[in-house]
Formats: sequence, structure tokens, C-alpha cells
Amino acid sequence: MSQLYASLFYQNEVTEIFSDRALVSYMIEAEVALAQAQAQVGVIPESAATAISNIAATALNQIDFDALAVATGLAGNIAIPFVKQLTAIVKQSDEDAARYVHWGATSQDILDTACILQCRAAMTHVEALIHQCYRTALAQAEQYRAQVMIGRTWLQQGLPITLGHKFARWASAFHRDLARIEAMKARVFTAQLGGAVGSLASLQSQGTAVVQAFAAQLQLSVPSCTWHGERDRIVEIASILAMVTGSLGKMARDWSLMMQTEIAEVFEPAAKGRGGSSTMPHKRNPVAAASVLAAANRVPVLMSSLYQSMVQEHERSLGGWHAEWLALPEIFQLCAGALERTLDVLQAMQVNAENMQRNLECSTQGLIMAEAVMMALAPHMGRLQAHHLVEAACKTAVEKGVHLKDVIAELDQVKDLFSAAQISEIFKPASYLGNIQDQIDAVLQEAKGEAK
Amino acid sequence: MSQLYASLFYQNEVTEIFSDRALVSYMIEAEVALAQAQAQVGVIPESAATAISNIAATALNQIDFDALAVATGLAGNIAIPFVKQLTAIVKQSDEDAARYVHWGATSQDILDTACILQCRAAMTHVEALIHQCYRTALAQAEQYRAQVMIGRTWLQQGLPITLGHKFARWASAFHRDLARIEAMKARVFTAQLGGAVGSLASLQSQGTAVVQAFAAQLQLSVPSCTWHGERDRIVEIASILAMVTGSLGKMARDWSLMMQTEIAEVFEPAAKGRGGSSTMPHKRNPVAAASVLAAANRVPVLMSSLYQSMVQEHERSLGGWHAEWLALPEIFQLCAGALERTLDVLQAMQVNAENMQRNLECSTQGLIMAEAVMMALAPHMGRLQAHHLVEAACKTAVEKGVHLKDVIAELDQVKDLFSAAQISEIFKPASYLGNIQDQIDAVLQEAKGEAK
Amino acid sequence: MSQLYASLFYQNEVTEIFSDRALVSYMIEAEVALAQAQAQVGVIPESAATAISNIAATALNQIDFDALAVATGLAGNIAIPFVKQLTAIVKQSDEDAARYVHWGATSQDILDTACILQCRAAMTHVEALIHQCYRTALAQAEQYRAQVMIGRTWLQQGLPITLGHKFARWASAFHRDLARIEAMKARVFTAQLGGAVGSLASLQSQGTAVVQAFAAQLQLSVPSCTWHGERDRIVEIASILAMVTGSLGKMARDWSLMMQTEIAEVFEPAAKGRGGSSTMPHKRNPVAAASVLAAANRVPVLMSSLYQSMVQEHERSLGGWHAEWLALPEIFQLCAGALERTLDVLQAMQVNAENMQRNLECSTQGLIMAEAVMMALAPHMGRLQAHHLVEAACKTAVEKGVHLKDVIAELDQVKDLFSAAQISEIFKPASYLGNIQDQIDAVLQEAKGEAK
Amino acid sequence: MSQLYASLFYQNEVTEIFSDRALVSYMIEAEVALAQAQAQVGVIPESAATAISNIAATALNQIDFDALAVATGLAGNIAIPFVKQLTAIVKQSDEDAARYVHWGATSQDILDTACILQCRAAMTHVEALIHQCYRTALAQAEQYRAQVMIGRTWLQQGLPITLGHKFARWASAFHRDLARIEAMKARVFTAQLGGAVGSLASLQSQGTAVVQAFAAQLQLSVPSCTWHGERDRIVEIASILAMVTGSLGKMARDWSLMMQTEIAEVFEPAAKGRGGSSTMPHKRNPVAAASVLAAANRVPVLMSSLYQSMVQEHERSLGGWHAEWLALPEIFQLCAGALERTLDVLQAMQVNAENMQRNLECSTQGLIMAEAVMMALAPHMGRLQAHHLVEAACKTAVEKGVHLKDVIAELDQVKDLFSAAQISEIFKPASYLGNIQDQIDAVLQEAKGEAK
Repeated sequence: MSQLYASLFYQNEVTEIFSDRALVSYMIEAEVALAQAQAQVGVIPESAATAISNIAATALNQIDFDALAVATGLAGNIAIPFVKQLTAIVKQSDEDAARYVHWGATSQDILDTACILQCRAAMTHVEALIHQCYRTALAQAEQYRAQVMIGRTWLQQGLPITLGHKFARWASAFHRDLARIEAMKARVFTAQLGGAVGSLASLQSQGTAVVQAFAAQLQLSVPSCTWHGERDRIVEIASILAMVTGSLGKMARDWSLMMQTEIAEVFEPAAKGRGGSSTMPHKRNPVAAASVLAAANRVPVLMSSLYQSMVQEHERSLGGWHAEWLALPEIFQLCAGALERTLDVLQAMQVNAENMQRNLECSTQGLIMAEAVMMALAPHMGRLQAHHLVEAACKTAVEKGVHLKDVIAELDQVKDLFSAAQISEIFKPASYLGNIQDQIDAVLQEAKGEAK
Repeated sequence: MSQLYASLFYQNEVTEIFSDRALVSYMIEAEVALAQAQAQVGVIPESAATAISNIAATALNQIDFDALAVATGLAGNIAIPFVKQLTAIVKQSDEDAARYVHWGATSQDILDTACILQCRAAMTHVEALIHQCYRTALAQAEQYRAQVMIGRTWLQQGLPITLGHKFARWASAFHRDLARIEAMKARVFTAQLGGAVGSLASLQSQGTAVVQAFAAQLQLSVPSCTWHGERDRIVEIASILAMVTGSLGKMARDWSLMMQTEIAEVFEPAAKGRGGSSTMPHKRNPVAAASVLAAANRVPVLMSSLYQSMVQEHERSLGGWHAEWLALPEIFQLCAGALERTLDVLQAMQVNAENMQRNLECSTQGLIMAEAVMMALAPHMGRLQAHHLVEAACKTAVEKGVHLKDVIAELDQVKDLFSAAQISEIFKPASYLGNIQDQIDAVLQEAKGEAK
Repeated sequence: MSQLYASLFYQNEVTEIFSDRALVSYMIEAEVALAQAQAQVGVIPESAATAISNIAATALNQIDFDALAVATGLAGNIAIPFVKQLTAIVKQSDEDAARYVHWGATSQDILDTACILQCRAAMTHVEALIHQCYRTALAQAEQYRAQVMIGRTWLQQGLPITLGHKFARWASAFHRDLARIEAMKARVFTAQLGGAVGSLASLQSQGTAVVQAFAAQLQLSVPSCTWHGERDRIVEIASILAMVTGSLGKMARDWSLMMQTEIAEVFEPAAKGRGGSSTMPHKRNPVAAASVLAAANRVPVLMSSLYQSMVQEHERSLGGWHAEWLALPEIFQLCAGALERTLDVLQAMQVNAENMQRNLECSTQGLIMAEAVMMALAPHMGRLQAHHLVEAACKTAVEKGVHLKDVIAELDQVKDLFSAAQISEIFKPASYLGNIQDQIDAVLQEAKGEAK
Repeated sequence: MSQLYASLFYQNEVTEIFSDRALVSYMIEAEVALAQAQAQVGVIPESAATAISNIAATALNQIDFDALAVATGLAGNIAIPFVKQLTAIVKQSDEDAARYVHWGATSQDILDTACILQCRAAMTHVEALIHQCYRTALAQAEQYRAQVMIGRTWLQQGLPITLGHKFARWASAFHRDLARIEAMKARVFTAQLGGAVGSLASLQSQGTAVVQAFAAQLQLSVPSCTWHGERDRIVEIASILAMVTGSLGKMARDWSLMMQTEIAEVFEPAAKGRGGSSTMPHKRNPVAAASVLAAANRVPVLMSSLYQSMVQEHERSLGGWHAEWLALPEIFQLCAGALERTLDVLQAMQVNAENMQRNLECSTQGLIMAEAVMMALAPHMGRLQAHHLVEAACKTAVEKGVHLKDVIAELDQVKDLFSAAQISEIFKPASYLGNIQDQIDAVLQEAKGEAK
């Protein structure tokens, strides 16, 4: 991808974690942990592990990335040429230790473990961002709990809600996402160490002890068996990010629709150089929304690639594993970028209460209160008949261009039941909000359980 | 989809749950629960709820499905015309009760709740199938734990493994899937009841109590807030099915590759009329694999549709919700079909141990034991030098068409280190299986925790 | 898919073409053509071909579809059990002819050829629907060529356009789609006849002549070689439908946004039972848009399945071919359904010119004419400076809540250049439409070349 | 994406075309063409156009890419900050000319036109690569036209084909791809110039003339109307690349399956550092296949993103356009990379004729000739009965582990019809190749029409 777009779609810290440099540093971390684990179990000499650890710490700057890139095209993965370079670096200062670099491991052990380390590091950022979004959405739900606005379904005005209810629903989605991430961690942040075909054959009887020590070194969970070809952990991590991104897309759709010139109920925060148009100086483009919506278009298809790539051959696959390398980092980057963009908007969304009021009142000449009227009539004449009566009244109101209240108030069936004052009361949006406050309270309450 | 393909791709019980008839019956169940909940809270008369419950029980046969289909095209969803028909049916015997059908609810309340009921019912079948697959894979892992075969990576022969290890790895994936499903249930099997815009406005102050009673009636969890536009629950359910299907695809790929004529290590169980070819009577086609692989091609893209459809507008969406109706049932059907097909194969897979032995021995003239040799040499000369030496020996063996052992045995560097007998021992596949038995034990052990 | 949704998402004729019954009838057509071609070339007796043709004509009603469905699950495709049934049917009246049913062909020959016949038949409907949409869009472009409305970018009001320009742009997309379909026909409507592995081995030296006669019988093009495993033709057909569906999705998005209560510039045609809401009698839901948008969500992912399924193994594949059976018919059905829905809307879209005028004038207090002002100033002070000046004026107008004209008219730099009357003229939307009429003419002109 | 993977998945020239630097240079080209077109029509002074052209030629090195990247995140696209920088650069030497930079255009005009220029340049490389693949496949089809090998269906041995037939089928796919690209060019390589909302309002009556001059400058076709929101051209370009990539994936699947250790019929060309394994020195990994298969996994989902992104709002969209920026370049890069990898393999594929012969003979003990036998018997006893007889004989042969010929030769029904010598003849693979030579000739003939 063009680096020019990184600031539009990605998030710095997470992008950094998936940079080439960081990938190699995680691979070094994995190799060091391997050497230490093997020394601990007695597979390789303690001195070799110490040497490898010492040298590796500074090895990153000695790696020739250009040579690595060329060799990767031939070898089919980064680990093979990386191990060659690392071994050579170690050899410079300790020929003996160099023999024990990457001992008994296969390329995929190092790449998968490095990948899991990247995922864990990136997930920390993602989780923190979700948490901030959650807290912000909760705060906004509280602040705007009584800010009446029109609810919309099928892009049509429906009945009134409050802006706080919208925020509460969004908060509730973040709450579920955090729960999903928490539940997944032990299952997916798992070491990979299986050697060529998953048997760790080269470690003879010491394989299991080494896997345990290796995982412990890296604070990863120990797999019951190797998972070179069973990729559900990788996919599970990504699938949760995809759900998060989908929810963010929903929010961005909402706020971009509310930003429409004719609606103008909320706005992305203004900033110098943000959302301007080269030709239309009056515009304030929903730039954050565009970025989040693009992510919500793209992450689903990258997920599709990951699900497809689960169909891997035998003990280690051909192509399926390779496809992961392209999809997984980008899902993290797009999700984190979308979170950062959304957090910006949630924190400083500009709310135009006046326009909310205007949209409630003007556009539909009381039509949005049709259900309130219907529900008021229903106990007296049945839901269906009330529906028909109100539907007819709505039609009349639209055709004549008059307020629904005026049509309703003149119907004999209604006059028999309600006074003019009662009818006026029925038509007030703020009195027709149902259990919205209960719902907001429930969402706020749900957050209390959380520590963090 | 052609009904002719249902027996190839789907599973009967789950398909039945998503049939039109069953969908309507779940909608009736939701309407009855609504009436009962509302009577309980005092929103509608007890008598009305009783009447609705009584009549609804037999209403399914009175529904005019053809009329429903026509009206759905105009209304944009099934619930609108369904409620009209149901109301009319109730009205036939109790005009008063008919007034209270669907009281205060919106179409999506009924459709979403019915959908969740379908998902719960279908998930029971899916879970049972996964459980059977898991138990079967465990049993096979135990049975074939010592059955040596060649492990393959990049579609090339690698080192020996055992067939039991393959089964253990598959079992382990099923184990994780069951854990995922269990962890998700409380979060996703949730009632939906929000009225037109999620506020339950028409129920005034009684909304929250009705939601709780409604959920209790159906033994669903109570949502903290309405989720008409926040679709992560639906997506989460499907995402786990997609992971399951991906794992099944991996298994089908493996066994279909092992069924290749030239490899012939395992076979799908034979059955009359199964896998025959109209033109090649000698063939035994991997029909189950074809079906599972087709599912593993298709479910990922349906997931992509679901993730995309999360970008819903405002309080209830336009198009995004509709797209779910097509994707979710099919994901269940394909996943359940793939599980059933896989279970058949896992249970009665025919294993040809002779061919496994033949493939171990003949194809590569000892090349698969190259790593064993390298690991035996490495402590004496360093991993890299051992690698070079063995690589050169392999090349020689290939060029001359002789067994690697014969090349190795003649190298001075080797002769200095090992006797001929020791070299022979190094070349035995069964002595180079690393910690495979530990891994199989770990997977079997993991299953002990499970009750069910 | 639920049959209840067929009227919402599909189109009758095209759905009929992909019904089980029609599929079998196309398979019969292929078998009859095969027999006739082989008789012509002298591979089978003339009498056998005649008998097969005669009997096959009425065989459809004798096919046991239930048995076919069961057998398909075992055989892995429909053709194997179908050929058995057809042979038995022919045998009832002519035992000799029965020997020659399906002579030398493989299942895939019949299924692929039947599939191409279905595609050709369905494409005729699709093409006719596109043509009607095209003609309608052209007519509307002409009718509304001067109907000024606001143009919108990034969901913000931009500058004025005309409704006719929008229609012209849509028409232009239909024009390109028709060209694509025309260009593709000879390439993709191609017979398939290759026998078991594509060699037509069983026909010995007569294979090529039979393929030619077979294609001629069905008026399909003759392939240079068999294409059992090379599926680009199938994918190309679908890819054009996907482009069409994407364009329809764009249109549906536009009209549904214009139908928003606050905007209310156009409406889907009203019809009894259409777009009503069970709870909000005042609403007029964009039901057609919902259906088209759902198709535009789903067809892209089905395309993804088809592209993926191109990776087929060897001479005939495992799973990839099977995945096509599910994706291709549905792409046709959804595209045709979306076309039918769109045609309805294009033909009878209700246009509210008053609201278009209102939206032009009220919402932005002259801000939409900012570019016109900037372009008027630019020759005098440079584009960038004019941009800054107008941007600042816009800010002032927004902050003070006054009309941009009033702010601009008071600026010294402007007063020096323009009179008040000139400024008023600059602010008229209808005078700022650029070359829109030329563009509409070009689109209308483009249509003249077309015969049909 | 990690730059480390570029050499594995991408192709240099095409990647260069989509680099940030190249993108900006194409944007400069578009701005220069715009200025020249406007001078030609008389919209801006000739001197300004000359100045802009002169300065722009060297402007690339003055662009501050870091600042551009930061500003893009705020502006929502590259063009806005790019135009600011370019204007400033021009201003340094000609303040007057600077006024006319980007005159009357909108960001999307420049980005879309630059994108089309990139596509055209990249397509030249793609086309050349396809052409080389085509010529190579043709040459190999000719060279191996008589090289008998087993044909495989459902991953099972079927009947004999020749390797040349496989190459001919692949060649035929390339032929169709070239035809598709040729047919598309005039339709899709089209200039974009519409100003803010597609009306070119700022150019008053001169818009149409400027568009024509602009397109002529760049040798692009003139659109009948602006296409900011109608993205079918972009999608069409990509859809053909996706078909190409799918075909390459099919080839890679084939050759990787044929490279399996147990099959060993063909090999990717050997090269130093290529396809080695860190742990298994004997292996020769199909690295090119892995790369091509990963592309064939990924391009389909990127296509899905593009089809989805067609659903754009109004005159210029929010998010949909943005999603294109990520998908389109990568589709080009992956397709070109897959072509380069495939060309390498097609040109120097190592063919092991001995193993082809071995696989034909050994594995199935004559079973692959079952159809030949059936077809020989069918004229005498009917296809179905012949099928049953041969099926039974196959079963016997498998159960007893004897050659099918031996079973067949002992059947009374067969002995009555054929002598032992005749039976032997029936069992020769090379005599059962049907019209394969005709097909190869037809594919070779098809290529004759081509000039290039």
C-alpha cells in the first residue's frame, strides 16, 4: 500500500509492530527464547544460549534487510534467510554458539511464534483503544441521555430516541468486544514449536520439555499439540478484529449520515487541514468516516481470505500459510486505524441540538408520532383498526400538507376518546421514549463490573 | 439453491430448522411469548394472551405461504404480512385477542428473535456433530497413535509422523471449537424486543419488564439494550461456524490428497452409489471431500457478506439486515453438512497401512531421514555445516539414484563418528518421531476435563 | 434460501431457468444434441438418436426428482444418477437406443453444457432488463435534463447538478454493460464435450467431428480445447453480472438517500402493500432499494467464491467445480432481481421538484455557491487566494448564521470587482451547471448507434 | 505489506508503477495535461500552461513526501495536499502561473486520471507477461504434445492425456485473457475531468472542449459523461486481472500436485537458494506455486472489495472510493507477480518422463484403462451393461491385487468378443488419447491469427 495512505487508514503503534524491522526483532526474540529453553532443558550448552542471547540483543542492526528481501523471494519465507544471517552474526563472535542457533526448529516455528508475539503486542493497543472508545461512548451516553432526536429506520424518520441511546448501543458493542478478546487470550496466544513436521523429532525425548520452557520464556500458553496446519487461532484473533471493525463501520455510517448537510445533527471534530475540499471551501467532509468505512469494506474480505486459507495441506501448507502473512497484519492495522479515527470522533463529536429539534419537528408534520397515536387508540379499537385509521390520517396529512395532529384531532372516532389537550400531549416526542432510560442505565451498570 | 444438491451439501435437521415452515413456527413462538410476557406484566389482558397462545399453537397450518411469499416482496420482510395473517387467524376465533397480537413490537423484533431461536436450535445440532467428530478423532488418534506415515510439508515428503498425530491435531481443533461455542452462548442467544426504533415506546413504562418476561419465556438472555442495528451477535455465531468449516476443509484437503491414486493411504468409506464415475468404473471419488471443500470455499465469502452487512444505518438498516437473511442460514446448513460428511469419513476412514509403509520407504530413497542424519551430525560439526554436508549428500543420492544411507555411510566425516549399525538405526522412521506420543497424550488428556 | 424471499430478491423467469426442473430439461437437451451429433458423424446409429430424441422430449415428467436428490448426495453430482434414470426411461421403449445414451461423454460435459445453456437463456432476460433500464434511464435523463438539484459529494452538499445528469450517468453505465455482454458472447457460450479427461478418448478419431456437430446442434461456439478445469468462461459471465449489480447498488444507494425524510427529493413508486411499516404507518420504506442493496452486498462475495474456485485440480477438480453450482445461479438470480426492482423504480420514480429546490436554497445559506464565487474571483487574485478568501467567508457565514452572499458582498476585495447585481447572478444555481447539457447529449447520442 | 515479501509476491516494474513516487508523477502528468488542454481551449493563458509544464517536469524531486503523508490523513486524499505543494512549487518561479494550477478540477479528477494512467502502464507489463506465458505454453504444448501422462479427475487417476494437452489448455486460457484485455482498452482507459460534482461548472461553456483536449493530451478516451461515482471501468480492469490470477492459480495447483514426492512428474526450475528447507535438506519446495496460490487466494477477496465499493453515494462517494485505493494496486501487483512466477516455471519446468510412465503403469494395475475396455465392450452389450461388467472386474482386480487385463481376459463375455492380442492393444495408454492432437492443433492454430 502507498505509504501516503498510512496516516489515513492505519494507526502508528500497530503499524510499527508489523513493520519489517519489528517482525525481525520478534523473530530474534523467538530464537533467543528457543536457545534459553533448550539450555534450560539441557539440549544445548548453557554457554551457547548465553552467547546467542547476548549477541541477538544487538543483532537487529546487523541484519541486511535488502539481502533478506531478495532471499525471501527464493526461499519462500523470511525465516530461512533470516536464520542464515542470524547464524552468521552469532558466528562472528562465538563460532560454537552459532551451531545452536535455531536448533531443531523449523521456519514456521519462528514465524508463527513471532506472529503470535506481534498479535499479542498489537492486541494490547487494540484493546486499549476499544477500552477508550467504550469509556467515551459511556460518558457520551450519560451526557446525551436526554437529548431527544429522531430515530431512523430504513433511512426514514421513525420515532424519537435520544442521542444517549445511540451511544449506549455503541458502548454495549464495545463491551461485548472486550469480553470476546478476554475470553480468547489463553486459547490463542500460544507458542509454536514443532520442528519440520510437528514432531520435534530432532529433540528426541526432550521435545515436550523444550516446548514448555519455550512458551514459559515468552509467557505464551503451551499448545497440546503443534498447530502448523491448524490455523483457527490466527483466524479467531482476526475474526474479533473484524467484528470490531464492522461495529465501527456502523458508527461511521451513522455519524456520516447525521453529518449530511440537510440533517446536520452531529459533526466530526474540526481541525486545521481536515476535511476541507479543494473546490468547495464550504464543505466539511467526514474524513474519519471515509477512512473507517473503507476499513469496514476491506477487513471483511481480508477475513474471507483468512477463512479460505484454513484449508491447508498436510503438516505444513502451500500457499494458504503465505496468504495469512498478507491478511493478518493489515486486519490489525485497519482495525486499529479505524479505532483511532472513531475514538477521535467519539471524544469530540460536535452535536447540534437545534438541528435535532428541527428535524424532529419540521420534516414530517407530526407523522413520526403516528405510532404514539396508534398505540393510544389501539386499546380502544384494536391494533389493526387503529393502524388503518392512523395510516389513512397520515395519507390525508401528506396530501393536504397539514400536520397530522390537525387531521387526527378532527376525526370523530378520536374526538370521542380524547380531549384536544390529551391529543397535544400524545404528540410530544419527549413523552414517547419508552424504556430508553432503563436501557442506558443497564449499559452503564454493565460497565461497573469492569475493572481495568 | 437447487434442492437436488441439498443431500450433497446440507444436513437434514439443520436445513429443516431454516425451512420456511420452521421459520414461521419460530415467529409464532416469538409472538406467543410476547403475548404471555405482556399478560404477565399486565400490558394486555390475560385472556388475550391465553387465546393467542391457544390459537397460535395450531396456526402454522393455516398460514397461506404463497400469499406470504408474494406479500414479502412488497413489504420488504416476512414479518409484516405474517403478522397480518396471524392476526386474522386469531380474529377468527377471538376478535378481542386479535387486537393484542404483535402488541408494541416491530417486525424486526419478531424476525430477530425467531432467528436467534433458529440459531440456538441449529447450534445444538452443530455442537452435537462437532462433539461426535471430536470423540471420533480422539478414538482414531488413540487407535493410530503408532501408525507411522510420512509427514508432508509444501506437498513434499518431510519426516515421519503417525496417523494418530494427524487425528490428534484435528481433535484439538474440535476441542477449541467446542470451547468457543460454549463461551459465546450467553452473549449471543439474546432476545430482541425494542419496538419501532428500539425504545419500546408503545409500552410506556412497562417496556423493561416486558423484555425480561419475554426473554424468560424463551429462555434467552436479556439484552442490556436493543440491538436492531448492532449485529455483532449474529456475526459472532456465524464466525465460529466459519472457523469450524475451515478446519473441516483442512481435513478434507488432507484426506483427499491421501486418497490420490499414487498415494492411496486412506479412503473415504465405500457405499453403494457413492463416488462412482459414469465413465471410469475403476475410480473411487472423494465425494465427501468435494462437498466439504465446496463448503470451505463458500462459507468464507458468506462470512464476508455478514461482516460487510454490519455497517447498518441508524436504528434499523436498509439492505444490510436483508443480506443477513440469505447468509446466516446457509452458513449453518453448509457447516452442518460439512460436519456430517466429515463425521462419516472420520468414523469409517479406510486406512491402508501397507501403502503408508511403501510411501515412507520407496519414494525418497532415504531422503526423508536427512534431518535425522543432520541432527545426529550437528552436535559434532554445527548445524549449518551438518546441513551443508547432508544437502550435498542428498544431491548426490538424487543424481546417482541411490539411497541416501549409502551416500552418507561412505563419507569420511561420518565414518569417523558412527558405525554402520548406528547409521542404520538413524535411518529408521519409527525412531524419529520426537514427542508425538506426548502430544497425542496431551490431546487425549485435554478431553478428560469435558463432561457432556 | 427461504422461498418466502424469492419475490423480494429474485426475478421469476431467471429463477425458473435455474430451477431443478429446468436444469434437468437442459441436461436432456444436451443429451439429445449429443445423440444427434453422434448419429450425424456416424458414431451411433441414426435410429438410436431418433429414439433418444423422441423419448427424451417427454422424459422430463418421468424423472424421479426425489430419487435424483438422494443419489446426488452419494454420486457427488446430478449427472451420474440423471444419466441412469434417462437411460432407464429410454430403455423402456427402446432397449437398443438406451445403449447409446450419454455415449462417450462424462458427467461434466452434460452439466457444463447445460449450465452454458442456462446462462445463455438467463442472459437473454438479463440483457433485456438492462436494455429496458437503459432506455428508461435515457428517457428520464431527457425529461429531467433541466431539473436542477444539489449535487452531493462525501454526503455533503456540493454544487448544483440536474437530475437528468444523474440519470445520464446511470444510462452510460448500462450502455457499457450491454457492450460488455455483447463482446463476451462468442467467447463464453461454448459447448463442453471432452469425455472423462478431456480427450474424448472413447470416440477415437471421431471426437472432433462430434464436438463440432454437438455445438452446432445447440448453436454454441466450438471450443479449441476442452475446458473442464479452465473455468474463466463461467467466471467471465458472472463477473459482468457482478458489475451490473454493483452499478444497480450505486443507484439504489442514491435513491434511498434521496428518499430520506429530511431530503425527500425522490420516492420509490407507491403500491398497495409496499413499503408499509407494521408500527409506523407514516413511513414509506425504500423496499426496492433494500433488495437491490442486499444483492449488491451479496453478489460480490459470490464472485469471490467463483474466482477462488478457478484453482481447480488437474483435468477435473475436487470441490472447486462444486462451489460453482451454488454461486453462479444465485448471481444470475440476484442480478436479475435487482434489475427488475431497479427498472420498477426508474420507470415510476416520483420526483419532488419542490424539495429539490428547497434543499438547494435553504440548507446551506449560499454555501454551495462558494465555488462559483471562488471561480469568479480566481482570475483576479489567483485560485489559492480566492480559495482562502471564500473559505474564510464561509466560516463567517456559518458562525453568524447568515447567507454567504451577504458576507461576500461586504468584502472590500469583492466590492472592488463586482456590483451587487453581478454578485446575485453568480449565486444562481441554474447558471452554474457547466457542461452538464453537453454530457447528457453525449449519452443520448451514444444510444443512437444501438439497434436492438 | 512487509517489503520483505515483495520479491515473493510482486513484480518489480508493476510495483514501481504503483509506488508513491510514481503515483505523484502521474498526478503531475495529469496536472500538466490539464494546464495544456486549458491553454489550448483558451481557458488559461498559454504562458501559464508553459510555465506549469516546465516546472512540473522537475517538481517530483521537490515534493515533500513526509508532509504529504501527514496531510493526507487529514484531508482524506492525496490530491488536496499534493495540489497545495505543487502550487507552491510553481509559485516559486512563476506566481502568475501558480494561479492556474489544478484550475477547475477536483481532487478526484487528478486521482482518477492518474489511476487510469497507472493502470494503462501496468497493463502493458501485464499484457506482455501474459503474452510471454502464452507463447511459452504454446511452445511447450508443441514440445510435449506426445508426452503421455495420466489424466486426473477428482484427484484420482482417470485416463491418459498428454502433457502437451495440459499446456494447450493453459495456452487457450491466456489467449482468451489477451482477447479480453484488448476488447476492454477503449472502454476503460478514459480520462476523468468533472470538477466538484461532475459538471465542470467552473469552466462554464468551455468544459467539453477542455475534457476533449485533456483526454487527447494523455491519449485516453473521452468519456461521454463524468464517472466519479460510476466505477465499473476500474472494476472491469481488475476483474480481468482476477480471471488471469485464477487461471494461474489453477496452473500452480497442477504443477505443485505433480511435484508431490510420490508423483514427481514435473518440477519447478532449480536455482540457488530456491525452495530449500531449513530443516529438511532433501526437499525442493514449490516456492513459485506457493506464491501464485497465495495470490489466487487473495485477489478474489480484493475483487470482492472492489465490487462492494461500487455502491457509491451520489456524485462522489464516502469510503467506497477510498477502498479502491487499497485494492486496485495490489491486484495489479499480485497478478503481475503471479505471472512472473508462472512464466519462470513454464519456461523451465523440469519434466520427468520416466515418472509419468511409472505413474501410468504401476499405480492402478490397468484400472485407468477401464473406460477403454468399457467402450470396446459397449457396442456389443450396451453402455450400462459394459459399465457394470467392467466395474465388477475392477473390484475383482483391486481385491485380488491383480492387473485388470488379467481379470478381463478371463471373462467369458470378453473372450467371446476379443482375442488376447486385441485385449492387449486396448490396454495401451498411447492408443487411447482421443482427439487430443486435434485440440492441440486447434490451440496452436488459434495463435496464428495473433500479430503482436
